[in-house]
Amino acid sequence: MSKATDTKVQILDSALGLARSIGYEALSIGELAKKVGMSKSGLFAHFKSKEALQLMILDHAAFTFTQKVIRPALKKKRGIIRLKAIIDHWVDWSVKENRGSCPLVTAAIEFDDRPGEVQEKIKTHLSSLHHTIARACEIAVEEKELAEDTDPDLMAQEIFSYILSYHLYVKTMCDAKAGKRFRTSLEQLIERNLA
Amino acid sequence: MSKATDTKVQILDSALGLARSIGYEALSIGELAKKVGMSKSGLFAHFKSKEALQLMILDHAAFTFTQKVIRPALKKKRGIIRLKAIIDHWVDWSVKENRGSCPLVTAAIEFDDRPGEVQEKIKTHLSSLHHTIARACEIAVEEKELAEDTDPDLMAQEIFSYILSYHLYVKTMCDAKAGKRFRTSLEQLIERNLA
Repeated sequence: MSKATDTKVQILDSALGLARSIGYEALSIGELAKKVGMSKSGLFAHFKSKEALQLMILDHAAFTFTQKVIRPALKKKRGIIRLKAIIDHWVDWSVKENRGSCPLVTAAIEFDDRPGEVQEKIKTHLSSLHHTIARACEIAVEEKELAEDTDPDLMAQEIFSYILSYHLYVKTMCDAKAGKRFRTSLEQLIERNLA
Repeated sequence: MSKATDTKVQILDSALGLARSIGYEALSIGELAKKVGMSKSGLFAHFKSKEALQLMILDHAAFTFTQKVIRPALKKKRGIIRLKAIIDHWVDWSVKENRGSCPLVTAAIEFDDRPGEVQEKIKTHLSSLHHTIARACEIAVEEKELAEDTDPDLMAQEIFSYILSYHLYVKTMCDAKAGKRFRTSLEQLIERNLA
């Protein structure tokens, strides 16, 4: 990466952390400037407006998700092993790098009553995430590891469901047994769809 | 209800709508005063501080949930019928009265990095919601409709999961098939736990 790109990525990392914690709307360019130790005008040169910054943060979140969750999983054997790798990396990414939540879901909730470009961007990234999981399920069917009549979209929505509740139960409810239940739900889901 | 209580409930209804839409932190007493057509000082007499208002909105959301979701279901026959009634009323409540999301989950996401009284309140209400669903599953076991080895907490967490993804898929992703998948997941969950 060039030095300029590198700086931008570092700024977006900080911005993502701030947005996740205080909200995307509450995050001002002035606030971000304080956090990264740059001038407000310097940041304006990078991001032009708050909405442009919000859109770039969302793209950055989706990009790091691909880098940290999807790409390492693609190196695994096609089928259930790869599907499980996506789920494991996903949980790791949210717990270790995003304080136990998903920045795209956080954004979805914040913007769900505010139509516009930001909402469209969130929709695009989350739908693409659903399709990635559904495709991983489909590959496991092609590999004859999951049953032929498996519905990849249903399975993907269920996986997404379990991850959403995992975050809510662990982070908000501080339910110590939720992680074990999450694992049980996933194992049983795969089990009942085996070929 | 007395006139004073009635007024307070109406204000809290408006406040809940605003909080769900713009966020709990963005909701100021001034903003609320404009919406309900009262003076700021009049509202301060009711709510004292923004945090007090946030706490009261959350209690109000939990109270209306009990009134609209749990109480009507308690009139139904103990067992699967009652469990299904809770889920149906829950979805109705979020879709018809909360524009397709759950105000407690919205609050959970907004406050998940801000420890304090508000976060504790959200934790209390969501944990209590989990226990209510788990208890409904347990009753269905006692009625010998669900299998003896059903894990009510696992089943409750799965039901919660499906509802969370239902909201995200329908509202954010605008996925027209998500509702049908949600119903399938629930039916299959009950099916595989039948006595």
